[in-house]
Amino acid sequence: MKKFLNDPAKFVDEMVQGIVAAHPKQLKFAADDVRCLVRADEKKEGKVGLATGGGSGHLPLFLGYVGKGMLDGCSVGGVFQSPSAQQMFEVTKAIDSGAGVLYIYGNYGGDVMNFDMAAEMADVEDIRVEQVVAGEDVASAPKGQESKRRGVAGIFYVYKIAGACAEEMASLDEVKRVAQKVCANVRTMGVALSPCTIPEVGKPTFQIGENEMEIGMGIHGEPGIQRGPLKTADEVVEAMLRPILADLPYQKGDEVSVLINGLGATPKEELYVMYRKVNEILEAEGICVYHAYIGEFATSMEMAGASISLLKLDDELKYFLAKPANTPFFEQAQL
Amino acid sequence: MKKFLNDPAKFVDEMVQGIVAAHPKQLKFAADDVRCLVRADEKKEGKVGLATGGGSGHLPLFLGYVGKGMLDGCSVGGVFQSPSAQQMFEVTKAIDSGAGVLYIYGNYGGDVMNFDMAAEMADVEDIRVEQVVAGEDVASAPKGQESKRRGVAGIFYVYKIAGACAEEMASLDEVKRVAQKVCANVRTMGVALSPCTIPEVGKPTFQIGENEMEIGMGIHGEPGIQRGPLKTADEVVEAMLRPILADLPYQKGDEVSVLINGLGATPKEELYVMYRKVNEILEAEGICVYHAYIGEFATSMEMAGASISLLKLDDELKYFLAKPANTPFFEQAQL
Repeated sequence: MKKFLNDPAKFVDEMVQGIVAAHPKQLKFAADDVRCLVRADEKKEGKVGLATGGGSGHLPLFLGYVGKGMLDGCSVGGVFQSPSAQQMFEVTKAIDSGAGVLYIYGNYGGDVMNFDMAAEMADVEDIRVEQVVAGEDVASAPKGQESKRRGVAGIFYVYKIAGACAEEMASLDEVKRVAQKVCANVRTMGVALSPCTIPEVGKPTFQIGENEMEIGMGIHGEPGIQRGPLKTADEVVEAMLRPILADLPYQKGDEVSVLINGLGATPKEELYVMYRKVNEILEAEGICVYHAYIGEFATSMEMAGASISLLKLDDELKYFLAKPANTPFFEQAQL
Repeated sequence: MKKFLNDPAKFVDEMVQGIVAAHPKQLKFAADDVRCLVRADEKKEGKVGLATGGGSGHLPLFLGYVGKGMLDGCSVGGVFQSPSAQQMFEVTKAIDSGAGVLYIYGNYGGDVMNFDMAAEMADVEDIRVEQVVAGEDVASAPKGQESKRRGVAGIFYVYKIAGACAEEMASLDEVKRVAQKVCANVRTMGVALSPCTIPEVGKPTFQIGENEMEIGMGIHGEPGIQRGPLKTADEVVEAMLRPILADLPYQKGDEVSVLINGLGATPKEELYVMYRKVNEILEAEGICVYHAYIGEFATSMEMAGASISLLKLDDELKYFLAKPANTPFFEQAQL
C-alpha cells in the first residue's frame, strides 16, 4: 500500500480537516463534528435544504458537491462506510430553514437504513424530510428491478439539477419531483481494471489478473457482469454503452448529457479516448449530446477504471443542468 | 500496461479528437492539424494572443487551459515529446489579432528549441512574438541557477494570471511583465511513488521499490534529490515544503496561493491530507493563504505522486488570480 497518509485510523478526519482548511469560504463543520459538513455561506430562509451522505473514498462524492447551486450539507462515514443516523440528523438540523430537507443518496443498505432513521428523528423535531434514492447502475440489477440498482456516478446529475431547482426557491415537493425525474432518466455502466486499498485494511479490495478487466463492477468492487481480457478502448466502450442505450432505451432524436467518470487512477487522456467512441456511437444512433462532463466525479480512491452515464434531457432538466454551480470540487458557469 | 486505448500510435490523436468532440464550444482545430488547437469563440481584435505547447500525457496541461481568461492556443506533441516548430507557428498565426503573441512554456530542451524557431518564423511574417519560459522546480537546480530549473505545475499560475491580464486588453509588454513576475514568485517540489507507462513504449518509465518514494522527481521521471522509504504524509510534506520556503524565501507576512497537484493516480483524499499539513506549517510560519488549488493540474498519466507549489502574491497578482476563467479543464468564478 503506497499512500500519502499518517495514522490510517485518522485518514478520514485529516482528509476532511484538509478540505475545510482549503475551502473555508465554501464549507464549515456543523455540530462540532468534522464528519458533518454544511455550506459556509449564509442560509437562505425558505430554501429547501439538500443533504447527502455516504462513505469516504469517493471524492468528489459526497461532500465535494456541497456548495452554491448544488447541496447544502453532507455527512461522511469512514472509507466505504455509511455515516451514522445521528450525523445525518445533525446536518438536517443545520441546513433546515423552514422549507424542509431533501435527502439524496445512493442505494446502499447502510445508507438507506441510516437516512431512514435520520428522517424519523427529523420528524420528531417537526422538520419535514423527503428522500430520493439514486440507483442507476444497469449492471447491478436487470430492467424491471430498477429499485435494486446501485447508485454510482449518475447521482452527480441529481445533485446538480435538484440543487439548481432548490436555488430557485422551489418547494420541497417540486425539488423532489425534479430529482426523481433525473433518477428515472439516468443510466450508468462501469468497468474496473484494478482494485484500491482501504487505508485501515491495508490490502487490495479484490484481485484481478494482469490483463483482465471487469465490466459492470461497482465502485466498492461489487461483482460485475463480465470478466475477461482487456479489450481495446473502442470495444470496452461498446460493451458499456450498448446495455445503457438498450435499458432506458435511449432513442433517435433524444438529447442527452454524457458523463465519463474516472475511478481514480485512470488518466484523463484515456477518458477522452473513450469519449471519442461514445460520441461516434451516439451520432450514429441519432442521439444528440447537449453537454459532456469528463473527469473524476465519483471515484474509488486509486482504482483504475471508468464509468459512462447518460442522462436523457427535456427542457426542464436542461434548464437546471445549465445553471451555474460553485462547490469545492465542481464549478460551472452558465452553459 | 493496463490502459483504455486502441492503437498506441493513434493514442494522442484520438485523445485530442475526444477533447474537441467533448468541448466544441470551447476548442477547435487550427490549420487542419489535430495537434494545433485554438479557442473556438471569436478572436478579439487587439487582444494579445497567449500560446503554449508541450508533450502529451500531462492533462490538464497543456491544451486543457485553452479558453476564456487563460490561453488562446496550444500545440501538442506525442506523449512526453515536443510539438514541432511548424505546429507552434500555425497556432501563432491562428491566434494573432495584431497585438502580438506571448509564448508561455516549460523549460525543456525540445520545447525551447522549437518555440525559438517558431518565433523566428513568426518574425518573418511580421507577427511580434515574446517568450516566457517557466521553470520553478527547486529540486532540478540549486538557487542561483534558476534558469536551469524545470517547469512543472506552477505554470498553471502563469497561464491563469497572464491570461486574465491579456483578457483586459493589456499590451504584449505588459502581459509579458506580469507573466515573468509570476515565474519569479512561484516555486514547486514534487514527489513520486510510482512510474507511468507511455503507450507506444509499453513499459514503465522508471523503477521504484515497493515501499520507496523519490522526493524531487520530475514529471517525466527525471531524477529527484532523495530516494528512500515512504514516510508519513506529514513527513513528506515537511520534506517538500521546507526547501520551497527556504528558496524564495517565503517569509512571515507573505500572502500566497498554494497548489497541491496530483500526478495522476494519487486520490484527492491524500492530496487533502497533505494540504492539512501544508496549512499547519504555513500558519505556524505566519504565511497567509489567499486561495488553495487542490487536484490534478499537471499530471504524468497514471503516475502516483504529488507536487506542492507556492505563489507569492502582491495586489496585482491577486487581482488577476481572482478573475474568472472558463476552459475545458479549469473553471473559476470570480474569487
